[in-house]
Amino acid sequence: MRIVVDAMGSDNNPTPDVAGAVMAARKLKDTIILVGNEATIKAELAKHDTGGLPLEIAHASQVVTMEDKPSRVLREKKDSSMHIGINMVKSGDADAFVTVGNTGAVLGVAMLRSTGLGRIKGIKRPALGVIFPTPERPMLIDNGANADCKPEYLLQFALMGSIYVERVREIKNPRVALLSNGEEEGKGNILIQEAKPLLEASSINYIGNIEPKEFMQGVADVVVTDGFTGNIMMKTAEAVASYMSKMIRVNIKSNPITAIGGLLARPAFDRVKQYLDPDEVGGAPLLGVNGVVIIGHGRSGAVAIMRAIEQARLVAEKKIVDAIAAGIDQEGKS
Amino acid sequence: MRIVVDAMGSDNNPTPDVAGAVMAARKLKDTIILVGNEATIKAELAKHDTGGLPLEIAHASQVVTMEDKPSRVLREKKDSSMHIGINMVKSGDADAFVTVGNTGAVLGVAMLRSTGLGRIKGIKRPALGVIFPTPERPMLIDNGANADCKPEYLLQFALMGSIYVERVREIKNPRVALLSNGEEEGKGNILIQEAKPLLEASSINYIGNIEPKEFMQGVADVVVTDGFTGNIMMKTAEAVASYMSKMIRVNIKSNPITAIGGLLARPAFDRVKQYLDPDEVGGAPLLGVNGVVIIGHGRSGAVAIMRAIEQARLVAEKKIVDAIAAGIDQEGKS
Repeated sequence: MRIVVDAMGSDNNPTPDVAGAVMAARKLKDTIILVGNEATIKAELAKHDTGGLPLEIAHASQVVTMEDKPSRVLREKKDSSMHIGINMVKSGDADAFVTVGNTGAVLGVAMLRSTGLGRIKGIKRPALGVIFPTPERPMLIDNGANADCKPEYLLQFALMGSIYVERVREIKNPRVALLSNGEEEGKGNILIQEAKPLLEASSINYIGNIEPKEFMQGVADVVVTDGFTGNIMMKTAEAVASYMSKMIRVNIKSNPITAIGGLLARPAFDRVKQYLDPDEVGGAPLLGVNGVVIIGHGRSGAVAIMRAIEQARLVAEKKIVDAIAAGIDQEGKS
Repeated sequence: MRIVVDAMGSDNNPTPDVAGAVMAARKLKDTIILVGNEATIKAELAKHDTGGLPLEIAHASQVVTMEDKPSRVLREKKDSSMHIGINMVKSGDADAFVTVGNTGAVLGVAMLRSTGLGRIKGIKRPALGVIFPTPERPMLIDNGANADCKPEYLLQFALMGSIYVERVREIKNPRVALLSNGEEEGKGNILIQEAKPLLEASSINYIGNIEPKEFMQGVADVVVTDGFTGNIMMKTAEAVASYMSKMIRVNIKSNPITAIGGLLARPAFDRVKQYLDPDEVGGAPLLGVNGVVIIGHGRSGAVAIMRAIEQARLVAEKKIVDAIAAGIDQEGKS
């Protein structure tokens, strides 16, 4: 396996990106190709003991920032780590691409037919799947690739999510639900109401509509929504979790007795933080493109990046792209 | 002031509903009319010292349950506490209606032209405003009355929310934002992109688009969204907060050292819980109908119901209905 890792993606690039790649090279024994400015990467690698590790460098003269508009990246940053890394997957020079950079830009570059990966035949819209870090690890799809959706897109998201979970997490016949504002008949917006009969008529194990609470409880393995709602939901979950953590910290420290209590209870807090920490579960797979792309959080540290690389390796090994192509072909015939 | 309170609304009705009404009658000195089964209410009132309190009873032979479909309530439960209570506001026999019952049913009954309140002239869709319990108390509108929205509905939600916050919370020229999946130009779904120029061209103090994190931080006083997204967002916030509270409790108790820490730190936790407890802020005002309706959580206790009654009193006193009618008339002319 050869996995290409964007060295210039994270908010603190290249430090966590390179450190994560070094950790992955040591752990996985697969070839890790760091793509980005060669001099910068070399200087960063010099801080690590990389003797004998299967690490390579692919030079890219341009850097995509979090502020770059995707349209500008597509037009003007064709020699960026994103373009070059994704093109290496297209050409077969690598099996997967991992980045924690500008999500909008990755989506755009990956979708390009010319130098990117393009869509799998039959797929109308690729989508971002994201794994929620609670112990049941449900997948939410779409997490922001498609702000406006049609019912048939949701059907395909359901199929792609189902295939991913079945192959990568080895859950047989995964339970698939639509995210809705209520479980009862008649609830949901028009999109959800129209997607429901499509899922019912499909080969997918559709178990009905669920609300955010049931999503967190892992009532379904795959939860399907449009990218706007999905993105708002995931951002709300993150915002509330970090708000609560901060408020607990501030309030505990405000008084010497509660401060002592906080110190003693600390191991319990740290465990709970993990349950809602997106860094625990690697990155979000971009499903529906002709190649493996894993996108992590910009604020990822080395461990989160290492996990995303492990995940990319697993997704490539399980041949998700072929499975989705076969699944969509099958669903079209039935 | 005369405020009519649904005695049969809460999950544990009539106990918290009646207790909240008694507390409000004692505190506010306004007349509180309990609507519901007369015998049930009398039996419940007998548990309280109600001597000299301005409490009345209005009998309703039917009860709306949380499981009742709104359509069935509209057709078959015309002698329920919801119908009768709302009709008392319509007829002028009461200044406001408070319930913590089935939200869909309240919306339907309130919207009726015949026996309900109907819409304020010029209002296309009434909407549910909900106050987020963080210290800045931002309002989210719509929280679930309209699963599918047009841009012009969002403009009206913005106007109604702005008028509510200006009058009831006495915030001059409230900051209004659209909820989006990103603040940058080009982000948002089609609905948000089309609503933006309408808000920009209006008299509303529109400050741009914000994400869930900024919503929680109180960057805007009023945050506008369609009822599907708004409902998913609020339910996600509640689900994450209650999940974290539960997990902290379980993990702290799992070990004697952390358990002692938890006991010492308890006052700090209790304060944080308040920041995310919807019971702290009363109910959700239904804006755009011809009368004051406040809808609380089904699981409200007596204090939450008392707060919702206080809020209803304030909303009636501030003549929100007249202000919205004048505002929509003004906006239509400009």
